[in-house]
Amino acid sequence: MCGIFAYLNYLVPSTRREILDILINGLKRLEYRGYDSAGVAFEGSNIDSEECFIKVIRQIGKVNMLEEAVRCAQDVNFDKPYNVHVGIAHTRWATHGEPSQRNSHPQRSDPDNEFVIVHNGIITNYKDIKSFLENKGMKFESETDTEVIVKLVKHLWETHKTSKITFRELVEVAIQQLEGAFALAMTSTHFPGEIVTTRRGSPLLIGVKSRAKLTTDHIPILYSKGCKDLTSTEGGSARACGYEEHPNESDHRGFVGTTHRNEDQTEFHPVDNKEVEYFFASDASAIIEHTNQVIFMEDDDVAAVQNGSLSIHRISRSIDDSTVREVITLKMEIQEIMKGSFSSFMQKEIFEQPESVVNTMRGRVSFDAELVVLGGIKDYMSEIRRCRRLLFIACGTSFHSAVATRQLLEELTELPVMVELASDFLDRSTPVFRDDVCFFISQSGETADTLLALRYCKQRGALIVGITNVVGSSICRESHCGVHINAGPEIGVASTKAYTSQFISLVMFGLMMCEDRISMQQRRKEIIQGLKKLPDQIKEVLKMDEQIHNLAQELYQQKSLLVMGRGYNYATCLEGALKIKELTYMHSEGILAGELKHGPLALVDRAMPVIMVVTRDKVFSKCMNALQQVKARHGEPILICNTGDVETQSQALKYIDVPLNIDCLQGILTIIPLQLLSLHIAELKKFDVDCPRNLAKSVTTE
Amino acid sequence: MCGIFAYLNYLVPSTRREILDILINGLKRLEYRGYDSAGVAFEGSNIDSEECFIKVIRQIGKVNMLEEAVRCAQDVNFDKPYNVHVGIAHTRWATHGEPSQRNSHPQRSDPDNEFVIVHNGIITNYKDIKSFLENKGMKFESETDTEVIVKLVKHLWETHKTSKITFRELVEVAIQQLEGAFALAMTSTHFPGEIVTTRRGSPLLIGVKSRAKLTTDHIPILYSKGCKDLTSTEGGSARACGYEEHPNESDHRGFVGTTHRNEDQTEFHPVDNKEVEYFFASDASAIIEHTNQVIFMEDDDVAAVQNGSLSIHRISRSIDDSTVREVITLKMEIQEIMKGSFSSFMQKEIFEQPESVVNTMRGRVSFDAELVVLGGIKDYMSEIRRCRRLLFIACGTSFHSAVATRQLLEELTELPVMVELASDFLDRSTPVFRDDVCFFISQSGETADTLLALRYCKQRGALIVGITNVVGSSICRESHCGVHINAGPEIGVASTKAYTSQFISLVMFGLMMCEDRISMQQRRKEIIQGLKKLPDQIKEVLKMDEQIHNLAQELYQQKSLLVMGRGYNYATCLEGALKIKELTYMHSEGILAGELKHGPLALVDRAMPVIMVVTRDKVFSKCMNALQQVKARHGEPILICNTGDVETQSQALKYIDVPLNIDCLQGILTIIPLQLLSLHIAELKKFDVDCPRNLAKSVTTE
Repeated sequence: MCGIFAYLNYLVPSTRREILDILINGLKRLEYRGYDSAGVAFEGSNIDSEECFIKVIRQIGKVNMLEEAVRCAQDVNFDKPYNVHVGIAHTRWATHGEPSQRNSHPQRSDPDNEFVIVHNGIITNYKDIKSFLENKGMKFESETDTEVIVKLVKHLWETHKTSKITFRELVEVAIQQLEGAFALAMTSTHFPGEIVTTRRGSPLLIGVKSRAKLTTDHIPILYSKGCKDLTSTEGGSARACGYEEHPNESDHRGFVGTTHRNEDQTEFHPVDNKEVEYFFASDASAIIEHTNQVIFMEDDDVAAVQNGSLSIHRISRSIDDSTVREVITLKMEIQEIMKGSFSSFMQKEIFEQPESVVNTMRGRVSFDAELVVLGGIKDYMSEIRRCRRLLFIACGTSFHSAVATRQLLEELTELPVMVELASDFLDRSTPVFRDDVCFFISQSGETADTLLALRYCKQRGALIVGITNVVGSSICRESHCGVHINAGPEIGVASTKAYTSQFISLVMFGLMMCEDRISMQQRRKEIIQGLKKLPDQIKEVLKMDEQIHNLAQELYQQKSLLVMGRGYNYATCLEGALKIKELTYMHSEGILAGELKHGPLALVDRAMPVIMVVTRDKVFSKCMNALQQVKARHGEPILICNTGDVETQSQALKYIDVPLNIDCLQGILTIIPLQLLSLHIAELKKFDVDCPRNLAKSVTTE
Repeated sequence: MCGIFAYLNYLVPSTRREILDILINGLKRLEYRGYDSAGVAFEGSNIDSEECFIKVIRQIGKVNMLEEAVRCAQDVNFDKPYNVHVGIAHTRWATHGEPSQRNSHPQRSDPDNEFVIVHNGIITNYKDIKSFLENKGMKFESETDTEVIVKLVKHLWETHKTSKITFRELVEVAIQQLEGAFALAMTSTHFPGEIVTTRRGSPLLIGVKSRAKLTTDHIPILYSKGCKDLTSTEGGSARACGYEEHPNESDHRGFVGTTHRNEDQTEFHPVDNKEVEYFFASDASAIIEHTNQVIFMEDDDVAAVQNGSLSIHRISRSIDDSTVREVITLKMEIQEIMKGSFSSFMQKEIFEQPESVVNTMRGRVSFDAELVVLGGIKDYMSEIRRCRRLLFIACGTSFHSAVATRQLLEELTELPVMVELASDFLDRSTPVFRDDVCFFISQSGETADTLLALRYCKQRGALIVGITNVVGSSICRESHCGVHINAGPEIGVASTKAYTSQFISLVMFGLMMCEDRISMQQRRKEIIQGLKKLPDQIKEVLKMDEQIHNLAQELYQQKSLLVMGRGYNYATCLEGALKIKELTYMHSEGILAGELKHGPLALVDRAMPVIMVVTRDKVFSKCMNALQQVKARHGEPILICNTGDVETQSQALKYIDVPLNIDCLQGILTIIPLQLLSLHIAELKKFDVDCPRNLAKSVTTE
């Protein structure tokens, strides 16, 4: 949610047009993170003076609206070249304040744009800071939580500017007053050619592009000095307005011992006057077309570029922190983030599933030897097998992948298996024990609630396993071990291929858990052979696209839709209904068929559209009972059933058939028709499939 | 679901009008169990011959439609007196076959009504039996599963009538072929003045009314002889059509030893020619106005009345079965099942809550000593405290009471707490261990899925705790220990006062679990004081009835409604949405506010009605964040918030305020406005509040 993109060129001459193209193109890659409004801020200097100024252009709507607004800007000289330049840009998903120009980013410190900021996250204590600053005489112009950050920096600048404080130090002091989650980038007319970025809870990475070889493959972390003086000046009033004063650990620097280095030795690009470009973005997909050399920032890192040199700072240090940030070479391919001939990223991703499931299994499942090895967790298997219970914690679609595999994992592990929505898990302060194994499932690896739940469990001594699609994401880095689902970048806001790959990853984990159990060998073999059949069977399901399109034409004007099923297909109902909700804004709900009689059956009549999933597994006859009940109430369900199951098909006017696979894998095949259905309904309603209203991918705030 | 009522008078002369009045009045008391159609069958004899016949009258719609149809029956002499007479009656909730006269009960064996049956439950193998009987040349006239039972009995009669088989023996043979759940009552022209009833999975109890003192307070169970011959005659063909042949244990009678009695000693009313009346019903509420002397039948009991004598039979016996059925004196008061001045039972039950919560706590909570004692489980507390985890298993509203208290139980017990929908729990064959403690929550104590889950867990050695409202119900009888919630009879199909009493019962359990923990004494005290405040606070909430009625007027024409909240109030959202679904047929859904950004937020726009629960607890600020998000999308939520919380109230155009109580009890106060709202919306839509369409109370089939 919300995409940040910033670009700094140092001794790489570019025209303003080229710079703006880079900024706006970066936003387009991040658009799936929010598309309520967009904005850009860039440096300049007045023609008739040497004074630096910053220009801000903002526009409600999607990024191409901003592009148009920039193109039409009257007072911008697009052809002017810059040797050194900083620009920051933002695409917004509104959380505080309705989508409007006033609430768009960049937000500014004052009408002169002395400081400007782009921010992703939620500041939970913004009201306290706001009233503190209002008492100091500052005027606020937006309803955003973001505005308090930039105004707080400006306030600190006014207080400390005589003491030669650096831009980075200002930001460091400011963020100590913030509670909540953020990733942010700031520029200032007082510090031309400089940028400061930081994060806590929201993702941010830095791309580095240089024709010269980089001087180092890691950046040592610097521990800040001088903060103490500043906070002590500010401390009294800060405490007065309810801020918690953070312990200043600069005094502990002796503790750091030999790892502390002098600043001169630790900047990233110490050789003077070498051209370099820096890209700061919420996501690698906005950087990969420029460079594959990236640094993932960690929580409370503050990165600053001054005179073309990048340095990374932290205020405090705990004993098990890494002392460096590695420069990582991304293996992403540029075509992975292009949608090619498909009408939308989502359509592309649905149709990629025959390949993405293969990628998830590649090098892990041997169909001949009937063996499964997940390299990322194999060294932890004996510890996992000894655990007292398995917890699967996630949000949204990722949560549904845990629901989908819960029954199989209970069967194969014979352990208690709990599946939890991360936000509820945190709200409940759920008891967690040292002998628990906790799985955290998130496509982006950055989902705020899931990440917070991870830290909660880690603190209580549980073993932490991450299941993510993004290498280097926060959940990857903070887990003890994990599985990359290898589905390839997923851009569509509604998750599709990540779901099926998460599903398969959890099945593979289950298969590893029981590899030594003689009584389960037959079942394991059947599942492994079932996995082998999946890619071809998915292709079969995708062939029904046209038939599902016809179904969409009959359904798209409905207001409500119920999706019913039970057993292994219950997750299909939840996930299918979520897809339809997200994309079509139709009120759809997944209903456990076993609960029908306890209430939901009251909704069924001739007019209520119902989809039922009835496949040939051990709850088949119970599902048929539910079907009879719905029909007795004059419901006319559309069935999702197995190919060739004529008896079931004869029970309904309409059906979609999917090939039969083993019970526990059937859910991978039954979800695809619902993915396609939601896509077609949204297209018929002329909605933007990749950018459903009100939503954004990678929810990095609670 | 489905109500059975039967009446047999022996030497108590009654006119047919009186008999029909008793039958129809009995159905009215059971109407909450289903109201798709109703029917009655009664004995008679042709004027011009001595031959016995049975007349059946059936009518779709509610019981008063049947009453009208009976009144208009042309060929019935209402004034004819009977010394001995049997009548059976039924109110139906359609599961197999749409609601129609043809599918109504009683079902008959043939056009001459030689055998007639009323049945509650689902026969899962009815298709196999049907094709077996069709091969024998029988013609079926309905789509019901019930018809196979009565036709199977007729088929057995045709085969064995020469061997002087009794009515009871016929039924015994027939039910050995049935899979699924049933309670049934049958009469026959071949056995005038006799009735046979039996049950497996569905409830059935017998009321006995006699001016003379009963000869015994318990009935010994008789173990049947003679079955073996019959099944062996039938065995070949039965096996051929897929029936499982039940082991005939009549040979094991020696094993029973001294407990076996001669039939002559074991009939209920052995003194000849004493007047007696028997009532057979699905529920005590249909019997209490006639007698308070009842016998609860157990699964596979077969009860038969012949010559005014009641006997109870079983085919097989296991070592820990009781050898007798006790005659129990019900303590129910007749006014408890009357709705008095209220417009509906549901309204009465909502307004009873200030008293029903007191009844739940009476004799259990000492507010002065700050002590809680639940007599039904106190002897098991040390075993429960040693357990590895707590499981709470239920359906529908009862499930929500477990969701509502889960967080508190986790806090007070520091144990893993799992809440499970019974049907899903069974579908998954969830691993259960000897050191688990499993709670089964059901208002009626008869909910089929919950009861099956209970047996599943009991078989695996877990400790079984029942939480029910009906004394003597199956869950009561089959639990190791339990809590009666003492809410008083609940007649309205949509559960209200049972929910709040279940909630309090679980809170009281939590308080007992931590009574010895020093660190929790303060919290315990606060909760106990919170409990003390509840009755008055509920009265405060009920005073807002008029205000909620006005809200209902604004909402009742909407198609959809979202109810959002988190933390302790998440269960309120689920339960409130369920109430609205059940009663108003509006598509309402409870949404965890923490999951909004993962999909449901797409549904929010200016037009979508939203209710948000925001009370002053530790998730308050997260709820306010969710509120901001909804408002940023032009949603205009109606708030349920705390009295006097002006800051929150100012955030919305409309709000309902409830008094502040301690966080973990707030859900009892926040659900009541939603109970009232659903009631008012349903009344405005002119729907029958006590009998919502498609539903029935006490779901005794899977």
